[in-house]
Amino acid sequence: MGNSFTEKAPQHPEPAAGESGAAPRIVLGSNQYGKAEVRLVKVTRDTARHQLEDLSVTSQVHGDFEAAHTQGDNSHVVATDTQKNTIYAFARDGVGSPEEFLGRLAAHFTTGFDWVSGGRWAAEQYFWNRINDHDHAFAKDKSEIRTAVLLAADGRTHLVSGITGLTVLKTTGSEFHGFPRDRYTTLAETTDRILATDVTAKWRYADGADLSGLDFNAVYASVRNLLLDAFAATHSLALQQSMFEMGKAVLQAHPEIDEVRLSLPNNHHFLVDLAPFGVDNPNEVFFAADRPYGLIEAAVLREGTEPQSPVWNTIGGFC
Amino acid sequence: MGNSFTEKAPQHPEPAAGESGAAPRIVLGSNQYGKAEVRLVKVTRDTARHQLEDLSVTSQVHGDFEAAHTQGDNSHVVATDTQKNTIYAFARDGVGSPEEFLGRLAAHFTTGFDWVSGGRWAAEQYFWNRINDHDHAFAKDKSEIRTAVLLAADGRTHLVSGITGLTVLKTTGSEFHGFPRDRYTTLAETTDRILATDVTAKWRYADGADLSGLDFNAVYASVRNLLLDAFAATHSLALQQSMFEMGKAVLQAHPEIDEVRLSLPNNHHFLVDLAPFGVDNPNEVFFAADRPYGLIEAAVLREGTEPQSPVWNTIGGFC
Amino acid sequence: MGNSFTEKAPQHPEPAAGESGAAPRIVLGSNQYGKAEVRLVKVTRDTARHQLEDLSVTSQVHGDFEAAHTQGDNSHVVATDTQKNTIYAFARDGVGSPEEFLGRLAAHFTTGFDWVSGGRWAAEQYFWNRINDHDHAFAKDKSEIRTAVLLAADGRTHLVSGITGLTVLKTTGSEFHGFPRDRYTTLAETTDRILATDVTAKWRYADGADLSGLDFNAVYASVRNLLLDAFAATHSLALQQSMFEMGKAVLQAHPEIDEVRLSLPNNHHFLVDLAPFGVDNPNEVFFAADRPYGLIEAAVLREGTEPQSPVWNTIGGFC
Amino acid sequence: MGNSFTEKAPQHPEPAAGESGAAPRIVLGSNQYGKAEVRLVKVTRDTARHQLEDLSVTSQVHGDFEAAHTQGDNSHVVATDTQKNTIYAFARDGVGSPEEFLGRLAAHFTTGFDWVSGGRWAAEQYFWNRINDHDHAFAKDKSEIRTAVLLAADGRTHLVSGITGLTVLKTTGSEFHGFPRDRYTTLAETTDRILATDVTAKWRYADGADLSGLDFNAVYASVRNLLLDAFAATHSLALQQSMFEMGKAVLQAHPEIDEVRLSLPNNHHFLVDLAPFGVDNPNEVFFAADRPYGLIEAAVLREGTEPQSPVWNTIGGFC
Repeated sequence: MGNSFTEKAPQHPEPAAGESGAAPRIVLGSNQYGKAEVRLVKVTRDTARHQLEDLSVTSQVHGDFEAAHTQGDNSHVVATDTQKNTIYAFARDGVGSPEEFLGRLAAHFTTGFDWVSGGRWAAEQYFWNRINDHDHAFAKDKSEIRTAVLLAADGRTHLVSGITGLTVLKTTGSEFHGFPRDRYTTLAETTDRILATDVTAKWRYADGADLSGLDFNAVYASVRNLLLDAFAATHSLALQQSMFEMGKAVLQAHPEIDEVRLSLPNNHHFLVDLAPFGVDNPNEVFFAADRPYGLIEAAVLREGTEPQSPVWNTIGGFC
Repeated sequence: MGNSFTEKAPQHPEPAAGESGAAPRIVLGSNQYGKAEVRLVKVTRDTARHQLEDLSVTSQVHGDFEAAHTQGDNSHVVATDTQKNTIYAFARDGVGSPEEFLGRLAAHFTTGFDWVSGGRWAAEQYFWNRINDHDHAFAKDKSEIRTAVLLAADGRTHLVSGITGLTVLKTTGSEFHGFPRDRYTTLAETTDRILATDVTAKWRYADGADLSGLDFNAVYASVRNLLLDAFAATHSLALQQSMFEMGKAVLQAHPEIDEVRLSLPNNHHFLVDLAPFGVDNPNEVFFAADRPYGLIEAAVLREGTEPQSPVWNTIGGFC
Repeated sequence: MGNSFTEKAPQHPEPAAGESGAAPRIVLGSNQYGKAEVRLVKVTRDTARHQLEDLSVTSQVHGDFEAAHTQGDNSHVVATDTQKNTIYAFARDGVGSPEEFLGRLAAHFTTGFDWVSGGRWAAEQYFWNRINDHDHAFAKDKSEIRTAVLLAADGRTHLVSGITGLTVLKTTGSEFHGFPRDRYTTLAETTDRILATDVTAKWRYADGADLSGLDFNAVYASVRNLLLDAFAATHSLALQQSMFEMGKAVLQAHPEIDEVRLSLPNNHHFLVDLAPFGVDNPNEVFFAADRPYGLIEAAVLREGTEPQSPVWNTIGGFC
Repeated sequence: MGNSFTEKAPQHPEPAAGESGAAPRIVLGSNQYGKAEVRLVKVTRDTARHQLEDLSVTSQVHGDFEAAHTQGDNSHVVATDTQKNTIYAFARDGVGSPEEFLGRLAAHFTTGFDWVSGGRWAAEQYFWNRINDHDHAFAKDKSEIRTAVLLAADGRTHLVSGITGLTVLKTTGSEFHGFPRDRYTTLAETTDRILATDVTAKWRYADGADLSGLDFNAVYASVRNLLLDAFAATHSLALQQSMFEMGKAVLQAHPEIDEVRLSLPNNHHFLVDLAPFGVDNPNEVFFAADRPYGLIEAAVLREGTEPQSPVWNTIGGFC
């Protein structure tokens, strides 16, 4: 029987049939490369009241890079260091929003090099609040991260904005019952449980829509609030139901968005049995578990919208 | 201009046109749910010489779960707790290999419930070595993690095995020059640099191939060794070239594998300038940087093989 | 010359002189044991407007446990599982503040078992904000963590409260010059730089002071605000200066506190040189570095106070 | 009652009595500063068979730095950037062992600046193994980290070497029973359980001993092996017992070491109850829990040795 601690003994297989001349060629498939997690802090100091933008930017290009892979010919390889420099140079003119900034990078790389057909640009943005309304002192808000992914492929751009790490919890207003019971089912039904999750939501803008003039920062603020309100307001019979309501609220308020994908861990909070100590526990004392956790994921979309935008392949998660 | 620390002020948008009766319905798209990171340790103790298997298993099912999302009707919702219990119950009969174990879970859930059409099952495996050949004492090998993902969809299974976290470095035998120079290029060319990366490789077995009787543990040991050998043996003109050679070596030796996808950060090691201190530095003293890093990714495949197996959509990374 | 990759070859030393009968006995020194990171979530639901307390609690006892170490005699070993159960049982009566809760645990264990002479109890508290003032829906505030350590030793209790992970940044109002220059100095002087740090502050209450009736939650809120204000208000010539002002502000406002210890990384933000691209950079575009970082640490205390409370030995950092 | 989500409302206390002229002065206490986590990779390439050393080095100095704290006068502040440069410059002459390298740094800073009275120097070392005995290709061994701390204070140096992150597990040969039972005790006794921990061990060399000529790399290899052997060989009635045997084995073999401090989490592996599924579980299927965990810590020392070397205050953990 296999056992994990001996699996690693080197073992050279027989020369495979696949090595005969008749075998199909081995070729390069889809590929991308660039610089990841370029940490960019932009201070806007036109006035004494400074503004602060804090991002981690990733740039990866697609195109004709076969020679680099098969022969180490770098004549097409726009250095990842050059991509990093470009990010910093462009930041001098301001960021504005992750979505706009990624758009500028995409336009530069896809028009600046004949052999670059597209690429994937992504950003995380971190938030800061002024310390007691100070002009140039800030405290970091670590409660959430804003995300954006822009895919340029086949002459089109596909844009997904998102939020991640937004941890929410309801102390009541959550039930779970009526699920099927089989040989392996031991879970008790409940009409009152803690519901907690870390919200990761990604919203896809309508492919091909004209997004010029859209205030992405305002959309972010609105979507964030809609997700929070829907989570809080939904009396939940299943995390799936809360999730669907969250996505629906976003689509109803934002016609420019065609699809919302949510990935929600069910952060289990187990009621502690205090009976052995002669103590009751009317849903007051809980153990917050780490692992395992439920993982509930779905796409909520406008009927008739493209169900499988290629941008999702670069993000992953759904079939 | 947008600034990150005010973006979060709640902002309720105008009722959107999308809310009129004429608007397209908002519907549930692709979805999956289950239990993630079920930590399973299996001890096989038929003899005094125990065997140890250590995994983190994730089970997610696909199928008809619309009622749970739209009405909180759980009559189809096989509880994530039930999925966890099933994993532990099945482990009693042994694990053997992550791939075989995931296959047993997939068969159980797709045949056991009429409304479950498929799912995604994934595992990480952690390695342990015997302490001085002791019968029941082990030390954990944290140098790499073995991975496996099995997707059951459209009546077919798609299997990807992998390795992640395998950190390798060459102190010489790596060059980088001949890349294009534009306005933003400042990088110097080099004929001798440190090349370092954390190998994440995923190999896809031929869809529909008969994998019964395949020794997945032996394949893992072989692929791991082939990746290491190719990295070490390749005189590298670009990380892309090393990456392609690594994937090619696997495909040449393993006809049962159709595609290898690699994601390789370029872990930069910068030569420290000691000249200001009157000290030379002939490629001996380096600063190992954290971020940013290059990120080089590609698929290497057998010509004619299915280029876009749906399993990749559940893993992500490529367009 | 030593080299790291061969250091691990097993190597059995000569039987040491220390093994002769004449050698000094090998004995047990200071020790402590218990349960760490007990994740406790307490919901107070006397009214429809629920209250939420979220902590990670660690309990470790000191006393006569020699037999367990030298003979595996557990007759004195209050099981770590029992310590965990006690934490949950006590939480049923409410938490109130980490400091008060740790005090109740300390009193229980030091009075409940003859051989328990003291111990170390510690807690982290995590914050949650109501979602739009909702009665039972909350969003986690991850921007800081509240800490507390209570040491019971020699019949006295020593209490240290703290805050950690509070990340702050000033975009100007920070200078650094006038430092000595030696052979290894290359740093340029500056009169305008970004100053950023992650505040870890720990304040020690006067040993032996009567803390009954003290509102620890109000003290926490006040100290937090004093630290933020002092960081923002100080025109900084050195991070040491900002740090001292932060500690001083706390001691001036809180006579019940004798000492504040701060540990402040200098989170470097390097101005990016855009000149090669023909772009100026008047302190607007920065690279936020990960490592290395400055690390500035000091104790600020009331003259005449005990300089070396034993509680610090259980926290570490200073000589 | 206190509740965590309102604790943060700013609250300015009354001007404290402590602010009156009669109040004790607020003064600077113990302090240290420097550069942390300087990532250093040293390649020794005298021959075609390269050697690789990979460390993270921290340098902090002690001395007369009051003016920097109280007035922002940096005339004594050896820049943390200068400390970083010094680390890299010294590495040009080789590392050899973390302990020797820290000793060279300590000597430089304590003799090079009149006002530097001492300091704390620390290192982590990461291990690499050759890929199939290759001359210049290596794979990182992430299974453990080597540590060292050197404290220079009061004209003496205090040296502690260590290992951390060494995860070990026994599938049998561990019992736990005979512990006291009180109102809060529910744990069942067991004569066969999994015992697992992450070894953090720190060994203190005899203060004032002549360590010149000691092969620290050989000592590390020996201590590591002694710890592993003692863990494996001890039939454990309590983790405390295994821990004491581990420390004792080191002291018996290494007369140059006076004290070993161990911090061992008890990584709980809970037997899964498969009975509800009609399946037995004779110690074969376990759930590996994350939190909470037992935490067992002790010092094992040679009778008569200094029980409280000041170096421990800079490491923390014990009273």
